[in-house]
Amino acid sequence: MDEFRALHLPGSPLLLPNAWEFGVGAFLAAQGFRALGTTSLGVSAATGEPDGAPSTREATVALANRLAKLDVLVSVDVADGFSGDPAAVADLAEELADAGAVGVNLEDGLAAVEHQTALIKAVKDRVPDLFLNARTDTHWAGDHSIRDAENRAKAYADAGADGIFVPGLAAPSDVRKIVDIGLPLNLLFLPGKVTFAGLAELGVARVSLGSLPYRMALQAAAGTATAVRDGRDLPLSPPSYADVVALLP
Amino acid sequence: MDEFRALHLPGSPLLLPNAWEFGVGAFLAAQGFRALGTTSLGVSAATGEPDGAPSTREATVALANRLAKLDVLVSVDVADGFSGDPAAVADLAEELADAGAVGVNLEDGLAAVEHQTALIKAVKDRVPDLFLNARTDTHWAGDHSIRDAENRAKAYADAGADGIFVPGLAAPSDVRKIVDIGLPLNLLFLPGKVTFAGLAELGVARVSLGSLPYRMALQAAAGTATAVRDGRDLPLSPPSYADVVALLP
Repeated sequence: MDEFRALHLPGSPLLLPNAWEFGVGAFLAAQGFRALGTTSLGVSAATGEPDGAPSTREATVALANRLAKLDVLVSVDVADGFSGDPAAVADLAEELADAGAVGVNLEDGLAAVEHQTALIKAVKDRVPDLFLNARTDTHWAGDHSIRDAENRAKAYADAGADGIFVPGLAAPSDVRKIVDIGLPLNLLFLPGKVTFAGLAELGVARVSLGSLPYRMALQAAAGTATAVRDGRDLPLSPPSYADVVALLP
Repeated sequence: MDEFRALHLPGSPLLLPNAWEFGVGAFLAAQGFRALGTTSLGVSAATGEPDGAPSTREATVALANRLAKLDVLVSVDVADGFSGDPAAVADLAEELADAGAVGVNLEDGLAAVEHQTALIKAVKDRVPDLFLNARTDTHWAGDHSIRDAENRAKAYADAGADGIFVPGLAAPSDVRKIVDIGLPLNLLFLPGKVTFAGLAELGVARVSLGSLPYRMALQAAAGTATAVRDGRDLPLSPPSYADVVALLP
């Protein structure tokens, strides 16, 4: 995990694009991205399951195994761990570490702080070298105060989290408060609300794209079909068939 | 299969966009596409296997089962059937029909005509109602004469194929020769070489996109990451998170 941890530089953040299948991961790696996240929405939608459902646990582990074949560092979005049982979440983290992942993202879904810290401790006890990015949903699932985010972030840091993720957070003064806690802060790129350079200036250490690449992929696929049907130009200039085959075993 | 067959109108072709996972299929269906193909490249790349490898048989069947949950007609790209054994290819076709698929695409890879007609007969004997689109690779894998394509198309028609697919074919006089055989002709959309309207005028009955939507999706995902990193505008305007969640169970 040392190399992955070292990429979290406050002020010069790691841009972590989120993959949901092998080809996307391989294509991103080929463009020079050294580390990849995953997106639970992409994994879930690809398999036709609700976002983050326990039924997507197997697909999540399979994805980690596939991405591990690439020369990249992989951090896996495990949603809420697909279980409320600390031992089961630790089992999952261990499977992912065995697959070659260097990190996981574990979201609280605004669960009780004591519940979430138990999950975090269980994971860190089992696989201390796995970078645990603790996500709080104070600014994603609801409209909670920055004080609430601060309290949760501190509790997760005390429980052993290696980084804090507050998707939805964007206000500069609030961002600085979480940065000041001292753990690497991960924020979600929010189109039109933040810029990568602006987040860097605030001291953010990781910027992830969440489901944005997956949603862009949907738009590109459908936009291609409608452009052909309607005789319009294609929306993008894609890699060739041979370029894609070259990414595969 | 009657509804699917009826969509193959020479002069007013079916535009068949190719999906490789559930979310893409659901998003295409939501835009009004009544029928979907699949792409072996997409299925293979997503799982990190070589294009059309026998190791992708399971993922191909899983995809058919997932897409069958949508209110669309699905034709499955089975590459070369993942086997040289007619009974094994018929087994696969039956599994796909049981999953709800209305058609399959079976490519010859320039195999001996007698071999390919044996596969076609085996499939049609087992599942007569499945629309068998017989692909010949004369203009894809090599630079064969139109006479070779005609001979293969006629042999496949005699063996029971419901449609003919000649990816790579584009020259109008050659297209007309295959149209004249009398089975619905499927061509691949080739950017810059053909237009949907132009293929319609030539009497083509189905236009498919092959791996193009998948390759566009890769470009969109990577283009999103590089745009964010470099402070440029996003390449497309994607559906929202809620829009995508609404496509899922």
